[in-house]
Amino acid sequence: MHDRRITVIGATGAVGREALAILAAAGHPASHVRAVASDRSIGAECAYGDDVITLDALDHDVASECDLALCCAGADVSRTWTPRFLAAGAAVVDNSSCFRADPDVPLVIPEVNGDVLDRSPRPRVVANPNCSTTLLLLAVDPLRRAFGVERIVVSTYQAVSGAGQAGIDEWRAQMRDVAAGRPPSPRTFPEPCVGNVFTHESTLDPTTGFTGEESKMIHEARRIWTDPHLALSPTCVRVPVERAHSQAVTVTLRTPTTVADARAALRHAPGLRLEDDARPPTPLRATGRDEVLVGRVRAAVPDEVDERGRTHTLSLWLSGDQLRKGAALNALQIAARMHDVARR
Amino acid sequence: MHDRRITVIGATGAVGREALAILAAAGHPASHVRAVASDRSIGAECAYGDDVITLDALDHDVASECDLALCCAGADVSRTWTPRFLAAGAAVVDNSSCFRADPDVPLVIPEVNGDVLDRSPRPRVVANPNCSTTLLLLAVDPLRRAFGVERIVVSTYQAVSGAGQAGIDEWRAQMRDVAAGRPPSPRTFPEPCVGNVFTHESTLDPTTGFTGEESKMIHEARRIWTDPHLALSPTCVRVPVERAHSQAVTVTLRTPTTVADARAALRHAPGLRLEDDARPPTPLRATGRDEVLVGRVRAAVPDEVDERGRTHTLSLWLSGDQLRKGAALNALQIAARMHDVARR
Repeated sequence: MHDRRITVIGATGAVGREALAILAAAGHPASHVRAVASDRSIGAECAYGDDVITLDALDHDVASECDLALCCAGADVSRTWTPRFLAAGAAVVDNSSCFRADPDVPLVIPEVNGDVLDRSPRPRVVANPNCSTTLLLLAVDPLRRAFGVERIVVSTYQAVSGAGQAGIDEWRAQMRDVAAGRPPSPRTFPEPCVGNVFTHESTLDPTTGFTGEESKMIHEARRIWTDPHLALSPTCVRVPVERAHSQAVTVTLRTPTTVADARAALRHAPGLRLEDDARPPTPLRATGRDEVLVGRVRAAVPDEVDERGRTHTLSLWLSGDQLRKGAALNALQIAARMHDVARR
Repeated sequence: MHDRRITVIGATGAVGREALAILAAAGHPASHVRAVASDRSIGAECAYGDDVITLDALDHDVASECDLALCCAGADVSRTWTPRFLAAGAAVVDNSSCFRADPDVPLVIPEVNGDVLDRSPRPRVVANPNCSTTLLLLAVDPLRRAFGVERIVVSTYQAVSGAGQAGIDEWRAQMRDVAAGRPPSPRTFPEPCVGNVFTHESTLDPTTGFTGEESKMIHEARRIWTDPHLALSPTCVRVPVERAHSQAVTVTLRTPTTVADARAALRHAPGLRLEDDARPPTPLRATGRDEVLVGRVRAAVPDEVDERGRTHTLSLWLSGDQLRKGAALNALQIAARMHDVARR
């Protein structure tokens, strides 16, 4: 995909930075990359591997000189600029929530439902799922393919960087405050994010009792798996971790299986790394990695194992870098597959 | 209970300190309290409210001058000394794991199964459950009484102080390290406990895949509820929080109910405080409180609500101070009830 001109919108945000780092590491030439930032950063330089590129404004020139736009800014920017990029002939992979519920825009995790990119007519706008959805579905999809999934209960342990650079900055400032004996002063988050855990800060729907993050997981999982009645019960929680989300997952399968067969289904699944029980995944070990680490696969209720060692309900634990597979990496994998399909 | 002579064993540990603080705040006279510590602390003074008491050695004098021993040291100390306290006529409330699985020793959360203390013959040794078990059962018991419980999936967010003073010290040292840009060096825990979350450090059983902490929750819940087949699926995780554990709980009920009726069952339950959805519990807000904070009561799968608004499966979120209700407070509540029963 090195011949494509890629524009990263929101280049100074946590996801935009990660996208540039992945492109640079993959050897995508600096001459084919434009980094777009908000007004206050225009003209500043930003590192691109060993090179340096200058931050551009988002204007019509940028839109017309681009084959692929990677939108890593807010939903408002995506809503305004996606039609302009499309009109100028570019494809768009959108990392905001703007198109995730739009039935005309595919929502894609390449390892799970990448085949929707191969259909005709080829989609020119693709939405990148929420990071928690991507990590969960990537880990559970091999079990779904092999045994079917009836129900999932998931509790998340989400890093502060899920709220972008502002979340990271707040966590670092509060670390210094608490280490020095000063009380932390929350700004980005509604609660202190050091020495504390708290319900995800997205708006809580008083009718369902779910936060916005939890509702996203439910609706996005149903869309990606085309399973409109999937029973998914999420609890989304922020924890004092800089990067990489973790999840405790309990899955009820349609067909019972043994732990050994479940592990076999996970072992060679793309994008996953199955860890030994002796060293369960941690967000620190998942940080900076492309694979989602999965471990602790076990019968959820040991008494519900039949004489052949099979159970309907498994638990597992995962950690994955939500800025990579949960965001920038998944978006670039979508872009690569769109390009491959377009070249066929 | 102010006329009883109480000996706190392990008085310099996290739970022992909390027990002394609760006794002092309740006005238990310093003259009726002895604080026992390990050899290296003997003769040192420790604060007791506005008073000061001197740390004693654990010897036969202490055992013979005591009505109630509160064992907050390790299981080895409990195993050796419980028979000696009993022989000297004292009652014992044991906070270690020594007697939790002993069928001859009741395992008690007073609000849940305190009636076992009233039976004849009156128990003279009572075990205090694991902190995670106590917080979970205290919150779910009102639902069990009203609607029956078929299955529980629980993910914990456990504070470092669950590993005692050494855990607190390690967390504080690593906070300073990370704030200063130095890498954290784990000693008490197998993984860094700042900027990270990790599977509970108790030994993982390779046969079941459960950690010791998770196995305790399963077996203790079954004992306390006298429900030997209870389907309980725990995942126990340490988080960078100094004090107070949190739990994401999903409960399948025998009889379906509405969220409003579930909240009504929880609202006036002893030892609980039901919080509004707008302000879900956090461990920081639970720290130092006697009540376990419960919130976010909701239908686990919104689609599984019938035309009368009833569901079989509810989720909720709780935070509770595991050094108070999870340990010292529960132990002292047991002691008070043993005393009340003895006086009848």
